[in-house]
Amino acid sequence: MDQILRINMGAENGPAIRIEPTGNYAGLGGRAMTSAVVSKEVPPLCHPLGEDNKLVIAPGLLSGSAAAMSGRLSVGCKSPLTGGIKEANSGGQGAQVLARLGYAAIILEGKPKDDTLYKVFINKDGVKITPDNSLKMLGNYALVDKIKGEYGDKVACISIGPAGEMKMASATVAVTDMEQRPTRHAGRGGVGAVMGSKQIKVIVLDDSEMPMRSAKDVEKFKEANKNFVQGLRKHPVTGEGLPAYGTNVLTNVINEAGGYPTYNFKQGQFAGAAKISGEALAELEKARGGSATHGCHKGCVIRCSGTFVDKDGNFLTKQPEYETVWAHGGNCGIDDLNAIAMMDLLDDDYGIDTIEMGATIAVAMEAGLAKFGDFEAAINLIKEVGKGTHLGRILGNGAGLTGKVFGIERVPVVKNQSMPAYDPRAVQGMGVTYATSTMGADHTAGYAVTANVLGVGGNVNALKPEGQIELSRNLQIATAAIDASGMCLFIAFAILDQPDTFQSLVDILSAFTGQNLTGNDVVALGKSILTNERDFNARAGFTSKDDRLPEYFKKESLAPHNVIFQVKDEELDQVFNW
Amino acid sequence: MDQILRINMGAENGPAIRIEPTGNYAGLGGRAMTSAVVSKEVPPLCHPLGEDNKLVIAPGLLSGSAAAMSGRLSVGCKSPLTGGIKEANSGGQGAQVLARLGYAAIILEGKPKDDTLYKVFINKDGVKITPDNSLKMLGNYALVDKIKGEYGDKVACISIGPAGEMKMASATVAVTDMEQRPTRHAGRGGVGAVMGSKQIKVIVLDDSEMPMRSAKDVEKFKEANKNFVQGLRKHPVTGEGLPAYGTNVLTNVINEAGGYPTYNFKQGQFAGAAKISGEALAELEKARGGSATHGCHKGCVIRCSGTFVDKDGNFLTKQPEYETVWAHGGNCGIDDLNAIAMMDLLDDDYGIDTIEMGATIAVAMEAGLAKFGDFEAAINLIKEVGKGTHLGRILGNGAGLTGKVFGIERVPVVKNQSMPAYDPRAVQGMGVTYATSTMGADHTAGYAVTANVLGVGGNVNALKPEGQIELSRNLQIATAAIDASGMCLFIAFAILDQPDTFQSLVDILSAFTGQNLTGNDVVALGKSILTNERDFNARAGFTSKDDRLPEYFKKESLAPHNVIFQVKDEELDQVFNW
Repeated sequence: MDQILRINMGAENGPAIRIEPTGNYAGLGGRAMTSAVVSKEVPPLCHPLGEDNKLVIAPGLLSGSAAAMSGRLSVGCKSPLTGGIKEANSGGQGAQVLARLGYAAIILEGKPKDDTLYKVFINKDGVKITPDNSLKMLGNYALVDKIKGEYGDKVACISIGPAGEMKMASATVAVTDMEQRPTRHAGRGGVGAVMGSKQIKVIVLDDSEMPMRSAKDVEKFKEANKNFVQGLRKHPVTGEGLPAYGTNVLTNVINEAGGYPTYNFKQGQFAGAAKISGEALAELEKARGGSATHGCHKGCVIRCSGTFVDKDGNFLTKQPEYETVWAHGGNCGIDDLNAIAMMDLLDDDYGIDTIEMGATIAVAMEAGLAKFGDFEAAINLIKEVGKGTHLGRILGNGAGLTGKVFGIERVPVVKNQSMPAYDPRAVQGMGVTYATSTMGADHTAGYAVTANVLGVGGNVNALKPEGQIELSRNLQIATAAIDASGMCLFIAFAILDQPDTFQSLVDILSAFTGQNLTGNDVVALGKSILTNERDFNARAGFTSKDDRLPEYFKKESLAPHNVIFQVKDEELDQVFNW
Repeated sequence: MDQILRINMGAENGPAIRIEPTGNYAGLGGRAMTSAVVSKEVPPLCHPLGEDNKLVIAPGLLSGSAAAMSGRLSVGCKSPLTGGIKEANSGGQGAQVLARLGYAAIILEGKPKDDTLYKVFINKDGVKITPDNSLKMLGNYALVDKIKGEYGDKVACISIGPAGEMKMASATVAVTDMEQRPTRHAGRGGVGAVMGSKQIKVIVLDDSEMPMRSAKDVEKFKEANKNFVQGLRKHPVTGEGLPAYGTNVLTNVINEAGGYPTYNFKQGQFAGAAKISGEALAELEKARGGSATHGCHKGCVIRCSGTFVDKDGNFLTKQPEYETVWAHGGNCGIDDLNAIAMMDLLDDDYGIDTIEMGATIAVAMEAGLAKFGDFEAAINLIKEVGKGTHLGRILGNGAGLTGKVFGIERVPVVKNQSMPAYDPRAVQGMGVTYATSTMGADHTAGYAVTANVLGVGGNVNALKPEGQIELSRNLQIATAAIDASGMCLFIAFAILDQPDTFQSLVDILSAFTGQNLTGNDVVALGKSILTNERDFNARAGFTSKDDRLPEYFKKESLAPHNVIFQVKDEELDQVFNW
C-alpha cells in the first residue's frame, strides 16, 4: 500500500493514469488519507462538481491485512451536499482488495470534456480505463451483474447508480459485499455525485495473486488480533446484540428512550416501533429462510448484517440497517418491514443515501406530497428519484433542498445534511455531534448514544446538557482515528468499555506498522484529522454559526420527555478547544 | 411619518395590530429603516420563512413630500434566497402613499397558525386586517382588479402573486404604479416569499384626505428641489437617454463594451442585441401606440418607464427594464421583444424577480431543459413557475437551486443571488460590487457601470482590477444613503457628475428635516447602513469567503476582450475597510 493512483479525467487526450509513491501521504489510511488529500489539494471554494474537486478513495491503514474488522473504505471530497469536506466510509470488500493491490488511495481528478462514461479495471498488472457508455444509467445491481459477466465473480466493485450519474447530492458510492452485491455504501454527503462528475461508473478491483498485507511484527500482530477478537466477542453489544439482531436492535432501545424521531422529528416515540424492530426483522428473516447474522466483508467477526428475502425466499436486499429502517420507517410513520426492505433495495440500486432519502421523504410528507404512513407513496417517491423526474431531482438532492423547494421550515439538517435516527433533544450528546461535526449531521462522527443511552463508556444523562461537550469531543477524536485505521466503528463498543481491548487495537497498529504506539498516538491521530477537516471548512467559509442545530430544536419540545436541545452555543464552540 | 405599524400574524386570537411611535428608529427611512429593524430584531440564524423573521416595509425619508424622485419603497427581511439581510426597493405609488398615511414602517411579524390568507387596508382612520381566502393564488393583475372593485381606483397596493404564496425564493413584493397596475417590484432576494409566509396577500393603501408631507424649511426646500430637478434635466443620462429609451438604452452600450452576458455568461456580446435594444423597443412602442416615456410614480421627472402594447394596441406590460430584457433576452439567446414583453408580464403577474427568473432560465437551458434562443420554451418555463409544478418550484427558487438540482456548475450567483446584466469580467467594478455587497450579486448596490463604462463620476478602466475597490466602496456607501432617502437611484448619474446637484440633494434633506447636513453626513449615513447589514450577515455566518465570485469567473475568459476577473481576494476584503 505504498502507491497512489491518480486518474486525471480532464487530460488533453482522455483520462491519464499516474501511479506515484505515497510521498507526503505515507502512513495515512482511510479518513486520515482522504481528509489530508482534500484539505491539501482541493481549493475550498471550488464547485463540488467541477474539475478542481477530487474524489479520494482510500482503504484503512490496516485494510488488506488479517486484522479483524479492517474492511472500511473511505471516500472523500468536497461535498456537494454540505459544501464542506466529506469523508464517508463503507464496508464491503473494496478496502481489503484495494489495499492488497497496493494502493493507499485512488484520486480521481479533473473532468472529462464530453459526456463519455468510463470504467476502471485494476489488477496485479496495472490499471486500465475504458469508455463504456453501455453502462449509462444502470442501477448498481444490473451494473454489477454486467461486470461479473465481463470480469468474473471474484472482483470487487466500487460504483455509482443513476443518482450518482445525475449528480444528486444524496448519491452514494456503492461497494460490493462478499456475495458481490452492491449493498454497502459510502452513503453520506453526495460522494457519488462527485464520482458521477468524474464520469466513472465503476472501479473493478481484482486482487488475484496479490498477497494479504503482512505486519512488520507478525507474531505480535497475531497475538494482538486474537485478543482483540476475544474482546469483541465478549462485549454484549458486539458479541450478542449486533450479531443476533443487527444494527436494528436499536429501534426498541432508542424508542424506549424517547429519542426515536417520528413523523419528521415531531415526537420521540413511534407507536409502530415494535413492528419494525430488530427483533421483528430477525424473526421475519429467519421465518422466510433469510439470515439475521452475516458479515459484510471477509474478516468481520461481529457480523451485524443479514439477508432479507421475499415471501418466496428469494434475495431481496441485505438486512436493512437501523438508520435505514428508521429513516423510511418511523420518521415517515411507516411500520411495514416489507416496504422498508423494498426502499432499502431501491436506494442501493439507484445509489442513494438511505438516511438522506428517508429524511427527505418525511419533509416531502410534511409538504403534503404524501401522507405519513403511506408506504406505497413513499416507494413511488424513491422511484421518482431513480427516474430523474423533476420531482425526483428535487428529492435526490436531499432534505434541505426539498424543504427550500416546498417552503418547509421544519427541516432537520445541519450543514445541509440530514440528521440520523436520534433526536438531538432526547439524546443531547448526539445533538452536539450533529451540530459540530465537520461532516454535517452525522451519527457516526461521535456516537454519543453510547454513554447517553447504552451505558457504554460511562453514563451521561441524555436529556441534560451537562457533560455532552466532553463526551462528543472525545468520541469525535476517537472516531476519526478509527476511521483512519480501516476498522469498523462498531469496535468502539468494546474498546470504550474494555481497556484491554483498546490496548489490543493499539498493539495491532504497533505490530502492523512496526512503531511503538500508545493510546496518546491514537488521540493525536484523531485530532490531526479533525484539524485538517476544520481547516478546510474554515477556508470554505464555515464558521461557528454552521455548528448549530436548526432553531426549532431549541423551541419545540419533544414528547414524551418534553425536552428541548439545551446545550448552549458557547458550549458548542468549545468542542474543538482541546 | 412618526409611527410604526406592527402586525403580529402569530398572535393568539388572530392578527394583532400595534401602532407605536418610531422611538429608536426615528429619523430613519427606506433601507436605513429596514436594515436597522432587521439587524436589531431578527435573529440571524432564524428560518427565513419562520415566525422569527420580520418583513419591514418602509418609505424613504423624503417619500410623501414634494421632493422629486422620492417614491422608492424599501422592503427588508432575512432573505430566503441569500440567508443574509435583504433590502429590495421599488418604485410605484406605495412609498408616497404610505408616507402620507404617517407610517415610517410596516413590520409584519410572527406567523399564522393556519393557512388563512389576509388583506390589510390602511387609511386615515386606521388599519384593518381581514381574512380573505378568495384572493388565494391570484396573479397580481387579477388581484389588483379585485381590490379596485372593492376599494376604488385611488388606492395603492403592495402585494404578492402566486410565487410569494408558494414561498419561492425569487418571489417579489409588487407595488402598483400611477395607473394602478402591479408593474413595480421590490424584486430581489425573495422578499415576496417572506410576505407569503406571513400570509398577507395585499396591503391596500388609501391616502385620501392625508396631506403631502411638508418640509421644516418650506422655502429652502422648494428652492433646493427646483435646482435638483434642473440638475437632473440637464444631465444627458437622466435628461435624455433614460426618458427617450428607458433603462434599456443600456443594451447597445453594454453590448458594445463587451460586457453583455450572453448564453448564461458564456460571452460578452450578443448578436441579437440591436433587435432588443432600447432604441428598437422605443420604436416598437411608439409604432403601436404605446409610450416610451412614462413615470412610475407621481413626482418622477426622469420618466424612464414606458408602456408596451400588443399588436392591437392593447396594454400588455410596462416597458420592460434593461435588466429584464437582458435576463430573458441575451442571456437566454432570445432576440424577440414580444416574447420578452410577455415574460415581463408573466413575471409581474406571478410576482417573480425578472433578473433571477432570466438567469434561472439560462441555467435551465444549460441543463438542457430548453434550447438557447427558444422563446416559446422560455415562456413555458415561466408558466411552470406560475402553476407551481415541481419544475416550476425548482425554477422559482432561483438559479442557484436550479443549478444544484440539475448538477450544473456554471451558475452565476453570489450569496446564491443571480448576477444582473453586466459580466463581472468585462465590468470589473461591478464584479467587486457583486462579490462584496451585503445583498448578494446586485447591480444597484454599487453601480460601477458609471465610471467603468459610462464615464459618469470619472473613468476607471472596466477591464482592469485597478481602482475598482475604491469605486465600488464609494458607490456602495452613496447607494445605501440614497436608498434611505426614498430617492430613485437614477439621481446618481447627476449627483456624481454635478457637484451642484449633489449639493441640492443635501439641501433638500437639510430643509426637509430641519438639520444642517453636509455631504459627510450622507456618507456617514451610508456607512452606518452598511455596517448594520454586515453585522447581521456576520452573525448569520457570512465570512469573507461569501464575498467571492464563483471560481469560473477567474478561469474562463470572456470574449471579445478575453478577460477574466482579476481583482484579488485580498483586495475584495478591503471594500469595507474605510
